[in-house]
Amino acid sequence: MSTVLVTGASGFIGRPTVSRLSSAGHQVHAVARQRPAGADNRVRWHEVDLHDHDRVRDLVTAVAPERALHLAWDVSPGFASSPENVPWAASSLLLLRALGDVGCQRFVTAGTCFEYDWSEGVCHEADTPTRPSTLYGTAKLAVGSTAIAAAEQLGMEVAIGRVFFLFGPGEPPGKLVAHVVRSLLRGERAACTTGAQSRDYLYVDDVAAGLAALVDSEVTGAVNIGRGQGTRVADLVTRIGEAIGRPELVGLGDRVTPAGEPPAIVADTTRLRTEVGAPPPLPLEEAIGRTVAWWRDQSTPAAD
Amino acid sequence: MSTVLVTGASGFIGRPTVSRLSSAGHQVHAVARQRPAGADNRVRWHEVDLHDHDRVRDLVTAVAPERALHLAWDVSPGFASSPENVPWAASSLLLLRALGDVGCQRFVTAGTCFEYDWSEGVCHEADTPTRPSTLYGTAKLAVGSTAIAAAEQLGMEVAIGRVFFLFGPGEPPGKLVAHVVRSLLRGERAACTTGAQSRDYLYVDDVAAGLAALVDSEVTGAVNIGRGQGTRVADLVTRIGEAIGRPELVGLGDRVTPAGEPPAIVADTTRLRTEVGAPPPLPLEEAIGRTVAWWRDQSTPAAD
Repeated sequence: MSTVLVTGASGFIGRPTVSRLSSAGHQVHAVARQRPAGADNRVRWHEVDLHDHDRVRDLVTAVAPERALHLAWDVSPGFASSPENVPWAASSLLLLRALGDVGCQRFVTAGTCFEYDWSEGVCHEADTPTRPSTLYGTAKLAVGSTAIAAAEQLGMEVAIGRVFFLFGPGEPPGKLVAHVVRSLLRGERAACTTGAQSRDYLYVDDVAAGLAALVDSEVTGAVNIGRGQGTRVADLVTRIGEAIGRPELVGLGDRVTPAGEPPAIVADTTRLRTEVGAPPPLPLEEAIGRTVAWWRDQSTPAAD
Repeated sequence: MSTVLVTGASGFIGRPTVSRLSSAGHQVHAVARQRPAGADNRVRWHEVDLHDHDRVRDLVTAVAPERALHLAWDVSPGFASSPENVPWAASSLLLLRALGDVGCQRFVTAGTCFEYDWSEGVCHEADTPTRPSTLYGTAKLAVGSTAIAAAEQLGMEVAIGRVFFLFGPGEPPGKLVAHVVRSLLRGERAACTTGAQSRDYLYVDDVAAGLAALVDSEVTGAVNIGRGQGTRVADLVTRIGEAIGRPELVGLGDRVTPAGEPPAIVADTTRLRTEVGAPPPLPLEEAIGRTVAWWRDQSTPAAD
């Protein structure tokens, strides 16, 4: 078992990933601007802003982790074109360098399906060209490609977990699934596009399982973190309507599908399943059920 | 005329570029770790380490430049695979962000022919794929692509001057032309490969002229900074031998050409000449003559 530093540890993906790494027996050092309420007691929390580069270097030096999982990034609304992507790329590279300096053996960072050329539909790590169309995808690719190119010089293994679409407990309320679930639970109509586009949607616990498995493996380079199967958005939201028992509130076609929306964005997950050995994902039906149950358990949801 | 911030101002390319921008009437703020001896008095020098991000932000805020030319990078021996490329990419992105925050209108940064897929020979900005084979090329591409993608969000024009091969007065002694000239001037044999490979070699003053023209233009995206013509390395060093009058000291074939050395790396300079309007380059013969004369004028050169 290893000492593992996890950034973005209080985030949507970070929380379940920290739990999994900790349950697997790793000594997890979790980094977040603020330790979340009810945080896992087996974990050592460090309240550090990753843009405070001197403090990050001090922390990395003090912890001297054997492995690191870098999840922190700005994914607040409008993140795809936010100028915050620029300092996040910079802070990610400075973290990488600091980890290399203390002998960290393995650096895993969260990449994204936004790095790929989406015209191909199914995205394969080695065969699909990278051609990001957003600043977010460009900045993530900049970090990932530099980290991979620097691996040998920094004396570490580097892997990029390219995360596709996801949903589950704790999702930020503005995102598709959280929005639809919360609207329907309030008895309100949820405006959607016609939902003809197909996306690779994975339950957040399965994303966490994939990333935790990637941290534990020796696989290097890019690895897609997805279901390996497309779900039409219309199917997804219809199933949510059925799970909640209010299918009539799903407003398919209420919103216009943005121009240039790719028909399909799906992960080839051969590397994830066979090389990394990630467990099979929860069936979509069950993932939706758990997500709805979680939102029901929250105290009366406020309007978005 | 504009207020122009130039980083790497004391470097091989920086010195003549600062002179050109200053002569063109710009108020140049030159940034270097150390102000060089005999520095241009029309220029305002700032002794700042670009890795000192707080000081960089303070400087950028104080100067509030309308345009910026970012040349600073680590190009000491072994630079192509140095881990220093990682923090240089980070510091470049933080500089970009700081410039955006103070309303800088135009950011020009030095890219490199190392960003291209070299299997094609002639490199064209729009048509030749980027496929860097070194950490240096990867890190430069990471900065350039992120800067271009962030241009709109930061409210600035962004251009990348992709510099090819160069030589001239002030070249670091370990580089090819400087090494051959100095060896021959000392009456020593200069070990070279067979020199069959063709490279786009431009005189450093012409590189400076191209970059200064790019700063003054409104052209955005990548622009090759080169001669637009390949020179066989054997021709280049043979001409140096003739210019010095010691052709017998040019040891062609004394060194083995490294495996995988691309046969040709040449810039397509259509954008530079027609869109940017850079002046035509000095003929190679004359550029070699001036370079040899400059090295002769230096006080007795020490051994490399």
